[in-house]
Amino acid sequence: MEMLKVSAKSRSTAVAGAIAGVIRESGRAEVQAIGAGAVNQAVKAVAIARGYLAEDGIDIVCVPSFVEVVIADQERTAIRIVVEKR
Amino acid sequence: MEMLKVSAKSRSTAVAGAIAGVIRESGRAEVQAIGAGAVNQAVKAVAIARGYLAEDGIDIVCVPSFVEVVIADQERTAIRIVVEKR
Repeated sequence: MEMLKVSAKSRSTAVAGAIAGVIRESGRAEVQAIGAGAVNQAVKAVAIARGYLAEDGIDIVCVPSFVEVVIADQERTAIRIVVEKR
Repeated sequence: MEMLKVSAKSRSTAVAGAIAGVIRESGRAEVQAIGAGAVNQAVKAVAIARGYLAEDGIDIVCVPSFVEVVIADQERTAIRIVVEKR
């Protein structure tokens, strides 16, 4: 499953396009975000991707969970959002 | 459907408990958040609620969308997250 890393500076429309592309190809995408700004962009991207995919008759849902990641030797808690066809 | 308003100051565990309660009762909950801090708390709450409900054998998914709301005569864009049983 392709993992898309989202930051607070990510453009939500660009992330939405990437999510829609991965969903069309494989039916399932994974988005990872650390911090409130990044999580906000990720959720907005999923909402926008829903619109893109609705045009193709594809309905998506998402499943958020916590995941521990190591960045520069530091453990951080990220939010992972799995996006999949309903 | 019950609507839970989440702010940046909401405790995510408290919101998670509320989501789990509404899902157990009615199978469907709606969470509304404005701003990155609030959206982050809402998503964390859904992730925590998944854990609570998994203990009851209930699997949830969520569907984010944009919604225009009027607060103090000003139009704001909120994120609405519909949480439902898979």
